Amino acid sequence: MTDVRMLPVLRWADPPEGPAVVLLDQTRLPAEEVERVCADVPALVEAVRSLVVRGAPLLGIAGAYGVALAAAGGDDVTGAARALAEARPTAVNLARGVRRAEEAHRRARAEGADEQEAAWAALAEARALHREDAEASARMAECGQETLRTLLPGRRALRLLTHCNTGVLVSGGGGTAFGVARRVHRDGGLERLWVDETRPLLQGARLTAYEAERDGMPYRVLVDGAAGSLFAAGAVDAVLIGADRIAADGSVANKVGSFPLAVLARHHGVPFVVVAPVSTIDPATPDGSAIEIEQRPGHEVTRDAPVGAEAYNPAFDVTPAQLVTALVTERGAAHPVGADTVADLCSTPPTGTSRVRDGMMNS
Amino acid sequence: MTDVRMLPVLRWADPPEGPAVVLLDQTRLPAEEVERVCADVPALVEAVRSLVVRGAPLLGIAGAYGVALAAAGGDDVTGAARALAEARPTAVNLARGVRRAEEAHRRARAEGADEQEAAWAALAEARALHREDAEASARMAECGQETLRTLLPGRRALRLLTHCNTGVLVSGGGGTAFGVARRVHRDGGLERLWVDETRPLLQGARLTAYEAERDGMPYRVLVDGAAGSLFAAGAVDAVLIGADRIAADGSVANKVGSFPLAVLARHHGVPFVVVAPVSTIDPATPDGSAIEIEQRPGHEVTRDAPVGAEAYNPAFDVTPAQLVTALVTERGAAHPVGADTVADLCSTPPTGTSRVRDGMMNS
Repeated sequence: MTDVRMLPVLRWADPPEGPAVVLLDQTRLPAEEVERVCADVPALVEAVRSLVVRGAPLLGIAGAYGVALAAAGGDDVTGAARALAEARPTAVNLARGVRRAEEAHRRARAEGADEQEAAWAALAEARALHREDAEASARMAECGQETLRTLLPGRRALRLLTHCNTGVLVSGGGGTAFGVARRVHRDGGLERLWVDETRPLLQGARLTAYEAERDGMPYRVLVDGAAGSLFAAGAVDAVLIGADRIAADGSVANKVGSFPLAVLARHHGVPFVVVAPVSTIDPATPDGSAIEIEQRPGHEVTRDAPVGAEAYNPAFDVTPAQLVTALVTERGAAHPVGADTVADLCSTPPTGTSRVRDGMMNS
Repeated sequence: MTDVRMLPVLRWADPPEGPAVVLLDQTRLPAEEVERVCADVPALVEAVRSLVVRGAPLLGIAGAYGVALAAAGGDDVTGAARALAEARPTAVNLARGVRRAEEAHRRARAEGADEQEAAWAALAEARALHREDAEASARMAECGQETLRTLLPGRRALRLLTHCNTGVLVSGGGGTAFGVARRVHRDGGLERLWVDETRPLLQGARLTAYEAERDGMPYRVLVDGAAGSLFAAGAVDAVLIGADRIAADGSVANKVGSFPLAVLARHHGVPFVVVAPVSTIDPATPDGSAIEIEQRPGHEVTRDAPVGAEAYNPAFDVTPAQLVTALVTERGAAHPVGADTVADLCSTPPTGTSRVRDGMMNS
């Protein structure tokens, strides 16, 4: 397997280059690999808003480094944390990563550390989150593969369909849903990865295809509306997607276009599998209706429309838990997905085992 | 209401400008309104293939004029008719319009007409088809409005969702599905027209938005994947789409992305209404699996993908009859849709009445 990363997706730069958070600019992929150096929090907030950096787990990591950046620069850490957490509303990982670094900073100060030492504490916490996320990717890949084996017994050449981008570009490691597909591929079990182009920003056609191409995976890109005829033709064995927030009842907010896939999957009796770290589950969000859905600018949609055209452009949609066949995390898989199995996952200690736990996998 | 047409969508030009078929180039809308003059059949075939002219009913009209063009130029009419009929495989109207003009030509010759007179006969037949299609549009608009009243009793401000483009740009008149929405709007009953952008060629964002803008309709453009969240929010009262071919069992081939809308509509209990002239019904195609689906070039999808990316790019998909709530034609509406009600429509004389016939509207 080719290493997908030419440039790191996200890195911390110490002086003299930094302090800075350096991002692989995802808006310019796959045409060019260029870095965006964020030397202060406003620059990082802008990078988050404009999707230079994106993807729920990676946003959490970026947010944590952002707090470390504010602390290293002697800026107002509380204000910076708030600005970062609010840069995009839907992915809970962002606010959570920010909070984690902010608390490390606050704790250090409370324990008598000076500003410099507290900044180091925030940076250490960001680095820990970064590393943990990479480990979580590996566990999700393993657990996802086992979940597919359980859901599709005896099926050896899988045709998997995915939406948006969920690989190394969204994670400290190999990613979520795409990481599972890559693992299946490495073990020789992938017949085809169907890649939804994912309008309006084409994260599938641009980014997932970029990762699949580098990984030598057999893939094809399709417009989002063409998935229906693949299901009808029996050409999809399972859908694998990531998540931006999972409510306590198991409802999943993910890139707009995910919910129609869930409905199509149910209509055709195809498993719909969500892959996300436990940090994506937000117990404080009771259900799907409580998830704030980011509305993006209309010009993302109306570029080719006549002057005056307005758009409906939500970045995400919500799939109710009953349409989710299984939820794969780094702590195991929930199947079926509901308030009880989701709560079980949250209370499972992050032990390092990635086995699909028997009690959860009973359907 | 503003007249949508600045330039005619399709016109026949006599000498000295012609003989020629002159098309409004739909690939350049909405940015510019320019005509494409097709002075011979190869030019017209190329215009059909490259979607300069498109839309099932209009393709039929273009095909008929194409035969007249071959005859007027003293070309091989049979060869021209075959090339035209095969220019795109899915829309049955194309082959049907071609055949109609070709038969008029053949009949004239058989009755002793010279080449010039036979060419006039073919042209007269194309003009008759053009005029009949305009009349059919008006009847479909009326019948569609009545069908919506029947399906949604008491609902006075409709939120309608449509896919692709089905207005004046696809027809000799006001169109099919879009014509119904326009009629509802003119009568003050349209709260919102949701316009799917319709990837990959954006007929919704470019062409339907262009028509809606000129007609002063309240509309919003959305990416195809965003329709799901509109259904989930209860923001869609009915789906209105056109058709490229309807099989004898009532299965509907239409622009790719239509079938997912039918599944979503069924999941949410929303009527899914197909609007098409009877000429779109092909009794020789027994069911959906017998409909040839045109595969379009991959570059339509992979423009922003990495070098080497391949695509799955069908132009159409098939919606089974059981997911179609009603089929609206110029001869009345079938509801439910099945082999018997579709056969009834085909055997109904084109009387000019557009009433929703009682026998068919019983569900």
